[in-house]
Amino acid sequence: MFEKILYPTDFSDVSKKALEYIKKLKMAGTKEVIVLHVIDEREIEHISHLADVSLDIKRLEKEREEYAQKEMGAIEAELKESGFDIKTRIEKGIPFRDILRVEEEEDISVVVIGSHGKSCINEMLLGSVSEKVIRKSNKPVLVVRR
Amino acid sequence: MFEKILYPTDFSDVSKKALEYIKKLKMAGTKEVIVLHVIDEREIEHISHLADVSLDIKRLEKEREEYAQKEMGAIEAELKESGFDIKTRIEKGIPFRDILRVEEEEDISVVVIGSHGKSCINEMLLGSVSEKVIRKSNKPVLVVRR
Repeated sequence: MFEKILYPTDFSDVSKKALEYIKKLKMAGTKEVIVLHVIDEREIEHISHLADVSLDIKRLEKEREEYAQKEMGAIEAELKESGFDIKTRIEKGIPFRDILRVEEEEDISVVVIGSHGKSCINEMLLGSVSEKVIRKSNKPVLVVRR
Repeated sequence: MFEKILYPTDFSDVSKKALEYIKKLKMAGTKEVIVLHVIDEREIEHISHLADVSLDIKRLEKEREEYAQKEMGAIEAELKESGFDIKTRIEKGIPFRDILRVEEEEDISVVVIGSHGKSCINEMLLGSVSEKVIRKSNKPVLVVRR
């Protein structure tokens, strides 16, 4: 029921709070955690449209990836210390869609997700990633608050 | 983190599936479960408006209450057998509002709720109770699927 968790994270504070719940779920049988970060390809597009100067998009993308890898490494270490099997995935795309795709691909038992993400602008424009995941997921979802 | 669960139920199948998750959460520290059923006062109003013949509203209400009490009794017995402390509450009002009110009153740790309820007509007209609870809750919510 709680054996394999999908933990989508945008590295926000509320997202990090979800880690505490995951650790607690170990006692309810969690063995494996899939940590997923989706780099929002639309965000980079927005920035390049908004920016006055011509931006080095490739470099911006590379910085995002490096940041994601660093954050992922820290989460992986923290969860491994708690005795979970960990798989990390960094994807590029549209967060809620890729979260739902990975949910199917990995055949997880439950999703643990923060109620609100980091990207205020995107969430106001496009609706909360979490809300879409909650609405469209085929699996149970634990929504963690700030 | 999972010590005191609020379990709002409309006695639907998906709502009953949530019981299995609650039992599993015992190992993650759940001690007490508040079982809440809210009799939707608007539903009885709708019926009295739709009905061609004059209905005995008092009798209809009494039947609802008796049904709720019977279902509650079964849930209470099942959860007690699993070793939880149980409190049952049957309220009359507007489900999502009363769920959020009881959430505050009882100072619970987490809400466990089914993704969809029984009342298809009301949910189509007024939106899903679960969605509103998820959006407005101050506490973490575990959403269980069919």
